[in-house]
Amino acid sequence: MFADPEELAAGVVAGERRAVARALSWVEDRVAGWDVLLARLFPHTGRARVVGITGAPGAGKSSLTDAFIARLRADGRSVAVVAVDPSSPFTGGAILGDRIRMQDHAGDRGVFIRSMSNRGHLGGLAATTPRAVSIVDAAGFDVVFVETVGVGQAEVEVASATDLVVVVVTPGWGDSVQANKAGVLEVGDVYVVNKADRPGVDAAVADLEEMLALGGAHRPVVTTSAVDGTGVEEAFSVVWDRWEAAEADGELERRRRRNLRAEVRRALHEALVARIDDHPDGDELLSAVERRLLDPWTAAERILVSRR
Amino acid sequence: MFADPEELAAGVVAGERRAVARALSWVEDRVAGWDVLLARLFPHTGRARVVGITGAPGAGKSSLTDAFIARLRADGRSVAVVAVDPSSPFTGGAILGDRIRMQDHAGDRGVFIRSMSNRGHLGGLAATTPRAVSIVDAAGFDVVFVETVGVGQAEVEVASATDLVVVVVTPGWGDSVQANKAGVLEVGDVYVVNKADRPGVDAAVADLEEMLALGGAHRPVVTTSAVDGTGVEEAFSVVWDRWEAAEADGELERRRRRNLRAEVRRALHEALVARIDDHPDGDELLSAVERRLLDPWTAAERILVSRR
Repeated sequence: MFADPEELAAGVVAGERRAVARALSWVEDRVAGWDVLLARLFPHTGRARVVGITGAPGAGKSSLTDAFIARLRADGRSVAVVAVDPSSPFTGGAILGDRIRMQDHAGDRGVFIRSMSNRGHLGGLAATTPRAVSIVDAAGFDVVFVETVGVGQAEVEVASATDLVVVVVTPGWGDSVQANKAGVLEVGDVYVVNKADRPGVDAAVADLEEMLALGGAHRPVVTTSAVDGTGVEEAFSVVWDRWEAAEADGELERRRRRNLRAEVRRALHEALVARIDDHPDGDELLSAVERRLLDPWTAAERILVSRR
Repeated sequence: MFADPEELAAGVVAGERRAVARALSWVEDRVAGWDVLLARLFPHTGRARVVGITGAPGAGKSSLTDAFIARLRADGRSVAVVAVDPSSPFTGGAILGDRIRMQDHAGDRGVFIRSMSNRGHLGGLAATTPRAVSIVDAAGFDVVFVETVGVGQAEVEVASATDLVVVVVTPGWGDSVQANKAGVLEVGDVYVVNKADRPGVDAAVADLEEMLALGGAHRPVVTTSAVDGTGVEEAFSVVWDRWEAAEADGELERRRRRNLRAEVRRALHEALVARIDDHPDGDELLSAVERRLLDPWTAAERILVSRR
């Protein structure tokens, strides 16, 4: 079953869970036909609300996501989670976490959770994430959470795959230089200080608000204790309201356009790289670069020019 | 002065500090002519020993790098540091740190330190870092340190710009799942447990060795207290020996080839993206994608095909 991309796309659009799982593996592993699959799904995308949840390891992203899932399920909304694990670039071991988490939602067909890992493909997770989102979006899930361990580059990547970004921090998450280094002050739309039962929460909120204000950004900061549910309802409302405000004022459309443009660029990149292998002089050019007889930029130019 | 890439390249090769600084700005800002500049420098590269130093914010990377610099200066070797700060993807504020650090080496022309930030260019730091390394390499610095805040993706990027990677961790750096999530177990050639004056150092070393052994990797783990210099000499020797072993057994050559191939791919990507703007139907295709009339993968294919 699902032997070809057309059939697989039909299964995804029909919301079949096995088709969704298979499609995700296709984009993750770049199985031949993944691009046709996505092309077929594309007209069915753009309906889900796509929210990124990022933060340092241990900040409590999964607990918060799970609390949001419970809240959405109570409203009858279906939810998919794409948990992006940039941990294992070479071996590609997606961690146990999602299996454990799926058990909590076992039997609930309104919830779908999938971890993606970087299997060493060029472009890696930066490319896989928005494609995975397209699949669950096309499958009809109302809300998609993209959960990612974020420091630096990862935040930018989650922003380019989502409608808005929730940054989760904990009290004692570090001084302002480190916060700045972690890049969290630049991509968040909503900030959640989680583990609010711990000491230092007021100071953490004050620090964060001050840093955001210094940067000219006025973003909501809320506190939660996701494990016992404190503050989750308010956090959820803030995120939800923020999404609706973005829809109303055109920001959502602007971001989605930006993200689609980024996808065209990635697609071009991959299509091109795939063709280096087919290029009659590809090996020879690469080998000349390795021996430093030719510089990489001139080599690239020759490959491009010869394709005209 | 340094008005054109040829002149600037000549200044870099002559080791002029102002030329080096200017050249780094060119690649960072993608000033027109950066590719010609790098092409001219390319035959002069491949001489420096290039070592990545990565780890979480606060692990003590800068202190360790500074201790290594002092050690190398005592031997009469010149050193350049490319400090990669993935923090500020959108505003591009490279932080105060390097200015402060440069003051420590003020007047020592054998040391050059430069922070690079991601100024929002496509490819960002992943592309800028190896190019910055090429510049200081061509300028004749004996050793280049690439210092980067690492979690996840960043480690892979530092590996693709360097000969070997030193991962710096601290006692209490987290349990094994987090270590795994941070990706540190996959790219390090040498592990340094820094801040060894703190409690938990033996446990941290034991944990790390066990995790590395589980993963089948046998990598040296050393402890330092970089601020007061404890263990720095041994750490330095381990790194230096490791580099020489890699040179002797062909691993160095293999890695440098891999890195050059990656650079050809990046150069192709950028050259191609630059041409989307010139493409007669570029705007129209992008606009069709934004309106979901055309999928990104088909759009990419059309741009490619029409260039033949």
